Amino acid sequence: MADKAQLQEAIKTQGEVVRKLKSEKASKEQVKVAKLLQLKAQLGGDEGKHVFVLKTAKGTRDYNPKQMAIREKVFNIIISCFKRHGAETIDTPVFELKETLTGKYGEDSKLIYDLKDQGGELLSLRYDLTVPFARYLAMNKITNIKRYHIAKVYRRDNPAMTRGRYREFYQCDFDIAGQYDAMIPDAECLKIVYEILNELDLGDFHIKVNDRRILDGMFAVCGVPGEKFRTICSTVDKLDKMAWEDVKKEMVNEKGLSEDVADRIGEYVSMQGGQDLAERLLQDPKLSQNKQACAGLTDMKLLFSYLELFQVTDKVVFDLSLARGLDYYTGVIYEAILSQTIPAPAEQNGADEAGVSVGSVAGGGRYDGLVGMFDPKGRKVPCVGVSIGIERIFSIMEQKAETSSEKVRTTETQVLVASAQKNLLEERLKLTSELWNAGIKVEVLYKKNPKLLSQLQHCEETGIPLVAILGEQELKDGVVKLRNVASREEVDVPRADLVDEIKKRTL
Amino acid sequence: MADKAQLQEAIKTQGEVVRKLKSEKASKEQVKVAKLLQLKAQLGGDEGKHVFVLKTAKGTRDYNPKQMAIREKVFNIIISCFKRHGAETIDTPVFELKETLTGKYGEDSKLIYDLKDQGGELLSLRYDLTVPFARYLAMNKITNIKRYHIAKVYRRDNPAMTRGRYREFYQCDFDIAGQYDAMIPDAECLKIVYEILNELDLGDFHIKVNDRRILDGMFAVCGVPGEKFRTICSTVDKLDKMAWEDVKKEMVNEKGLSEDVADRIGEYVSMQGGQDLAERLLQDPKLSQNKQACAGLTDMKLLFSYLELFQVTDKVVFDLSLARGLDYYTGVIYEAILSQTIPAPAEQNGADEAGVSVGSVAGGGRYDGLVGMFDPKGRKVPCVGVSIGIERIFSIMEQKAETSSEKVRTTETQVLVASAQKNLLEERLKLTSELWNAGIKVEVLYKKNPKLLSQLQHCEETGIPLVAILGEQELKDGVVKLRNVASREEVDVPRADLVDEIKKRTL
Repeated sequence: MADKAQLQEAIKTQGEVVRKLKSEKASKEQVKVAKLLQLKAQLGGDEGKHVFVLKTAKGTRDYNPKQMAIREKVFNIIISCFKRHGAETIDTPVFELKETLTGKYGEDSKLIYDLKDQGGELLSLRYDLTVPFARYLAMNKITNIKRYHIAKVYRRDNPAMTRGRYREFYQCDFDIAGQYDAMIPDAECLKIVYEILNELDLGDFHIKVNDRRILDGMFAVCGVPGEKFRTICSTVDKLDKMAWEDVKKEMVNEKGLSEDVADRIGEYVSMQGGQDLAERLLQDPKLSQNKQACAGLTDMKLLFSYLELFQVTDKVVFDLSLARGLDYYTGVIYEAILSQTIPAPAEQNGADEAGVSVGSVAGGGRYDGLVGMFDPKGRKVPCVGVSIGIERIFSIMEQKAETSSEKVRTTETQVLVASAQKNLLEERLKLTSELWNAGIKVEVLYKKNPKLLSQLQHCEETGIPLVAILGEQELKDGVVKLRNVASREEVDVPRADLVDEIKKRTL
Repeated sequence: MADKAQLQEAIKTQGEVVRKLKSEKASKEQVKVAKLLQLKAQLGGDEGKHVFVLKTAKGTRDYNPKQMAIREKVFNIIISCFKRHGAETIDTPVFELKETLTGKYGEDSKLIYDLKDQGGELLSLRYDLTVPFARYLAMNKITNIKRYHIAKVYRRDNPAMTRGRYREFYQCDFDIAGQYDAMIPDAECLKIVYEILNELDLGDFHIKVNDRRILDGMFAVCGVPGEKFRTICSTVDKLDKMAWEDVKKEMVNEKGLSEDVADRIGEYVSMQGGQDLAERLLQDPKLSQNKQACAGLTDMKLLFSYLELFQVTDKVVFDLSLARGLDYYTGVIYEAILSQTIPAPAEQNGADEAGVSVGSVAGGGRYDGLVGMFDPKGRKVPCVGVSIGIERIFSIMEQKAETSSEKVRTTETQVLVASAQKNLLEERLKLTSELWNAGIKVEVLYKKNPKLLSQLQHCEETGIPLVAILGEQELKDGVVKLRNVASREEVDVPRADLVDEIKKRTL
């Protein structure tokens, strides 16, 4: 068997040959042979020893225990909120029939992961949770449900992992399906975003709202031809990353609008406000003539009146520049934006040193047509929902945890069963089992005769607050020495009282 | 746009044409054209309307809210147990580099789902959680960890969904990696299986244990040639489904053992016992001469002494017929078997009417070589672990729930905010928001003027225990009428006390 150094040498040598041949403009055939030789060397040649690339797939990552502890904390906050609002949960398979996803994502369809055709059905990994949800509703003929779904989705996008953009990532979706009175479920979705971002304690945020009908009405009265609504909508969507001047250039130069039309759009999309803006636009001589815009604006007014009752208007802005990418929205749309991510690295720099903006952390809207695309009879089920952009939130929380002095615990162990003397393994295991049976979270070192110091160190490292120490004397006296790791205080506790004492101390 | 009936007619007609042409042995070209026409009809011809197959991929299923409620309950029991034992958790991506999985599953490799080559890396869906765990350890140079991992794995197997066998299914793995004193972590794994099966309350069960070294030693002293150890091991593994006579036939006829050798194996594999059996076999004139067997039997004795301390020996059987399929085990192996699934349909049939056996619900063992397969320097990390076969447990719990009179709740809503009078939507939303802000789980119907009856019906259907009823009088008096849905009792509660009263009643 070739050893590793030999193999690496072989790879390097063949790599050099490839480069050399290329630089000499060698015949294609020669390069090909050299490449194959390099590949063979990488594969370990005839020696059979395989040189592994020890990594996860591009754009994906493992979660280590610390990251999992943070993830669990974030999920608990989000799930508690969803449950507080009476939501059920469902789950769907990670892959769908390829045709289920076909025609739902427009240009982004190229980012869908397909499975290899190994005989049988053609399958693709889910791209989001909304399309599987719509498929689920149509398939089971469900006409109303309030559900959340937390699961991973897959996109063959360019990963930007430091900014929380992955090829495998979580979505946390909450949706309300059903025919209800206008804007009540829509208002609840916004209330949920508000509650979650508040509880996650990620700093200041605001939620932009708009309505696809207002956008379409606005495009119409500005003179955009009907067939250009969607593409102009996509251009407007770039206003959160581009200056108006550049957006205008794209409208005129790439999308073929006249300057006049673009300028008229420019006036509208600079408008921000609340209920008052909706009222004002209902009086706008042009917009008020457009049926779509009027319907959207009337609903916007109603939405704000409900948001007032929900006490969330301090963070909600009616913003005419909000467009959102997805095609399937039919009514209200919204997006939550964090003002900053984490406090500036050194807090003494003063409040003016803002962190880096991460942008949108939640978004959603109304999509009344999607379920109908799956129903054999085209029956529509009106839906409104929100998706929490959890990966960005994880990134922020992880950065926060790193700068914070507080240690993240990755286990919940309450007590370590230890001993200072030799030959007490059996006694340690017996006590450990007693405590497990009583529901206490216990660890014991897997050593016959561990040193007391290494047992205490394990507690320090993993944050276990208590040690139950057994010795010959304690066994004779029917007690256990309970030690507080932080304060180093020790007290003898009668064995019969140990469970209660541990519970009391680790509430 | 063509309507559905027309389309189906077109599909049918073209289908018939295909069949007719085939039966007439028409030219291939004709059949091809007809097939294309059929496909075109299925795709909706020129009308653009697509006829969907509305289903999930073969061997997969959605979880509806009721199934999710059961799943959550099962997971909570399992996770609590893992945490009680001080485990951390990790997560890995759903797909791995194809080569990471290569050479780990023997013949079963054909069941691996590959992703389509869309440029870039070659990927496969994970087949279990053990190989990704080993990859994770090697990649991060982790030499000791106690972790659990609950996630879905993928196998292109023949699904048997009524018996809980799917192509996408959950595994719940708990593993202890690290160099420790013999059999202590191994005993903890068995303790965990015991605790979980007890708490899940699935009826009687037993856990078979054996050791690969004992098996190998036994094969050696029976006269099995070394190169046949693994294949004979696979045949022994069938003893839980086949009679000895058939297993023997396979050994002799298919695997080429002599009848003598098979009979000698037959004697050993019929042995069952506890610590005493291990002691007895250590005195066995033949086995005691085999180094491997002796090491395994000595450890088995030690294991039982720890299991005694953990008070689980009542369910553990040392069974020489236990072999397990996977190649990578190197020491102790175990498997938990339920005696029966659910009580016989009608309980009055008496205790003798046993349910249907589901077989193995948990299994695992020691695999000291797997991490070394990933480490560039071949460094070994000894591991022992257990995997809970959660899908079978789900199936049993679902069947139990269906035969039980108790209703499974799919939400946790404590109270519905309702009103008997019209025009109180705003007041309902205001109170709802107040309660959400106080952490109460509340629903409100999304209707301007819902009937009281339909509000009460919603509570009955979904199991909401309380209704907070608002009316003109209550608003004037500063109270809310709190109704117990089950008893129909109503009492006026001062608005300021409402949160406490709801909390008290829904502890």
